[in-house]
Amino acid sequence: MAKPKIEPRLPKGMRDFLPQEMIKREYVFNIVREVFHLYGFEPLQTPVLELHETLMGKYGEDAEKLIFNAQHPGGKEELALRYDLTVPLARVVAQYQNEIPIPFKRYQLSPVWRAERPQRGRYREFYQCDADIVGVTGMGADAEILSLITTALTRLGFQQFSVKVNNRKLLTAIGEYAGAEGDQLAELYRSIDKFDKVGAEGVREELVKRGVQADVVTRIMELVTARHPGLEQLNFLEEVMGNLPAAQAAIRELRELADHLNAANVPANFYEFDLTMVRGLGYYTGPIFETVITEPNLGSVTGGGRYDDLVGLFRGESLPTTGTSLGIERIIDLLDILKLYPPHIGGTVVQVMVTVFGDDTRAASTAFAADLRTAGVRTELYMLDKQIGKQMTYADKKRIPLVAVLGSQEIADGTVKLKRLADGEEVTVNRAEAPAKISELLS
Amino acid sequence: MAKPKIEPRLPKGMRDFLPQEMIKREYVFNIVREVFHLYGFEPLQTPVLELHETLMGKYGEDAEKLIFNAQHPGGKEELALRYDLTVPLARVVAQYQNEIPIPFKRYQLSPVWRAERPQRGRYREFYQCDADIVGVTGMGADAEILSLITTALTRLGFQQFSVKVNNRKLLTAIGEYAGAEGDQLAELYRSIDKFDKVGAEGVREELVKRGVQADVVTRIMELVTARHPGLEQLNFLEEVMGNLPAAQAAIRELRELADHLNAANVPANFYEFDLTMVRGLGYYTGPIFETVITEPNLGSVTGGGRYDDLVGLFRGESLPTTGTSLGIERIIDLLDILKLYPPHIGGTVVQVMVTVFGDDTRAASTAFAADLRTAGVRTELYMLDKQIGKQMTYADKKRIPLVAVLGSQEIADGTVKLKRLADGEEVTVNRAEAPAKISELLS
Repeated sequence: MAKPKIEPRLPKGMRDFLPQEMIKREYVFNIVREVFHLYGFEPLQTPVLELHETLMGKYGEDAEKLIFNAQHPGGKEELALRYDLTVPLARVVAQYQNEIPIPFKRYQLSPVWRAERPQRGRYREFYQCDADIVGVTGMGADAEILSLITTALTRLGFQQFSVKVNNRKLLTAIGEYAGAEGDQLAELYRSIDKFDKVGAEGVREELVKRGVQADVVTRIMELVTARHPGLEQLNFLEEVMGNLPAAQAAIRELRELADHLNAANVPANFYEFDLTMVRGLGYYTGPIFETVITEPNLGSVTGGGRYDDLVGLFRGESLPTTGTSLGIERIIDLLDILKLYPPHIGGTVVQVMVTVFGDDTRAASTAFAADLRTAGVRTELYMLDKQIGKQMTYADKKRIPLVAVLGSQEIADGTVKLKRLADGEEVTVNRAEAPAKISELLS
Repeated sequence: MAKPKIEPRLPKGMRDFLPQEMIKREYVFNIVREVFHLYGFEPLQTPVLELHETLMGKYGEDAEKLIFNAQHPGGKEELALRYDLTVPLARVVAQYQNEIPIPFKRYQLSPVWRAERPQRGRYREFYQCDADIVGVTGMGADAEILSLITTALTRLGFQQFSVKVNNRKLLTAIGEYAGAEGDQLAELYRSIDKFDKVGAEGVREELVKRGVQADVVTRIMELVTARHPGLEQLNFLEEVMGNLPAAQAAIRELRELADHLNAANVPANFYEFDLTMVRGLGYYTGPIFETVITEPNLGSVTGGGRYDDLVGLFRGESLPTTGTSLGIERIIDLLDILKLYPPHIGGTVVQVMVTVFGDDTRAASTAFAADLRTAGVRTELYMLDKQIGKQMTYADKKRIPLVAVLGSQEIADGTVKLKRLADGEEVTVNRAEAPAKISELLS
């Protein structure tokens, strides 16, 4: 064979997931899928390649520079790799209008591509995980999304988190209340959005620097620094801004949302009304949600809200939609940081490795491995002609929890020696009893 | 909102998978993953985008015309969408030489892209599903692959199938035996490969037409039409060709393979030695496998074999490898044709829909839905303000098996009325007993 001329390497910003990493990812994916199903969200999958025209004009010019184009020699269509999961959803609800029942509750867990400058924790191919409810105006839908988030995070093992809830309409109202509009209103949002980073004093300074009038700054700060628990926060807002129509609508929505959450037994410590939470995306029209891991403070893991105008885009109508993205790549990393992966989500899918001493014992080992598999035990049969020491080293390197040793003595006796590598625990049992013993040793 | 200017449509050869279809696909994917894990195959995932140079020179010119290229504005790397899962495997085993334990048993279940002319059952984005064992020369590895195939197909519900086993070396030997070499040998393979389509007489005619000498044709036909059961087939080959070194090696390998299969209790009716099975790909070096569904005759669902020279490509060495592709897209279709999807793999993930009569009963319905979810029941809470009849129609259209009705009477009584849509069976139970009753009604 010729010497290799091509160096094995990846494109910029791309990753391979070797088994150890994949096993963690699939653990997270499976929990998330299970919770989606529990709430009646159905799986949807769209192709990686979309028509270029489907994606253009949806994300803004800066974002659209990051889209990967695709083409095959002689191809006539202009194609592009999917940039998010929302535009494909919009295309789907228009394209299959007669087949899709409304409400349409779908999730999609798929990679997207963005040619951003790669940096720590940011890649050019990464998974997004979106759940949305299309076709419902009532706050019951928003409550389902919020309940879904708390269940998913709880099942993943997070204990200290908070879904921050705000309402786009409330931000408009704050602007009215404070006498800010147009560009000034947008700047005001951007400044409030920095609350987490720069604190109240920082926001105040920034507003002043932006030329916002002193009395307006004072009014805004009064509102955004208010931290009343639960519904008291809404009462406070009503007192202060209840005369503004936008605020009335916003507060009414949030009250309804709170009623639904209460009825659904969503623990009140898992969410809070926070006026400083401003989602960056301009397309939201109602309640918005963002979840932060609070203890330790590890930032945001979900983002979403109600966006009634985007999903109907290809249908040429407004189509009420609310939903959330789970920051699935971030969640996968956080489970490592917080040590939330269960012990069996280690380096391998294998539960037991069966050793092979040599040609004279191979058939017995092969038969035993087959029996274990029939009993549902995830089994690797060792396959190289190596000494037992090397076989153990291999099992250890792969972090296989148990090794089953079948030497000529065990074969003659109808037994097998099971060895747990973590603590060296060893036990010899009849082969028929092995599956039960294995399950005991693994637990 | 402006009228839509962009028609919602897909690129040529691409598909959306709406929930009904996705549920079937995930059912198949899950079974296949479970069986891979049972055999100790570990999940691997490589990125969709590879460097163009990684893919080039591996598949042959005609194939390489079908590769989709990708690029982002200003990007300097030449990228391409993955064309198969074997070249990425070869890249990975070279790139992570020190991290990957040998034997490396990996599977990958991922889409690939090929710009072929779309036709019935052929798409430009489709899933491949490969399991390979890297680093083992012994036939134990090939036997594992074959055992894996039979278990996977059995678990999927296939009952009548046959893994046809041949050996590339045997085909070389047949050439020697028949005095055919070079181009003539290649033509001979191509003709034998048509056996399934044109039968023995067709192959004979084609060989004659190709100008193969009459006595050579007779000898070849004697070999390829031999149909001895099990090991007798190998005995026959040994009698006829035992004096040729290539045949000796091939027959020795197949005998070893049969020994392993026997030790692993792989039912002998699931495989046969078939000299007319010639895998198209030129890179095989040892045993080759192809599975056909026999009753009814529905063609091939797996293909694979030993290819010792490809996976070491980027390492510049030969690296023994054996494996199989499951034709996962074909399998998904066949399960429909053969009606092998279990009844619960219907149109929806939802097991129960909870109706909502109106604002006065909404809280109770919401609380009940939350309780069902806590008990693990996949539950949809109806969300539009529609009459009960419309709610039933929606449940029916979505093929939700059960509806839970909570009217004011049931709320007062602490009960719920469960209705099974398939047969109209109705029962009213205490709400605390609902999860158990639901599981009974679903089974």
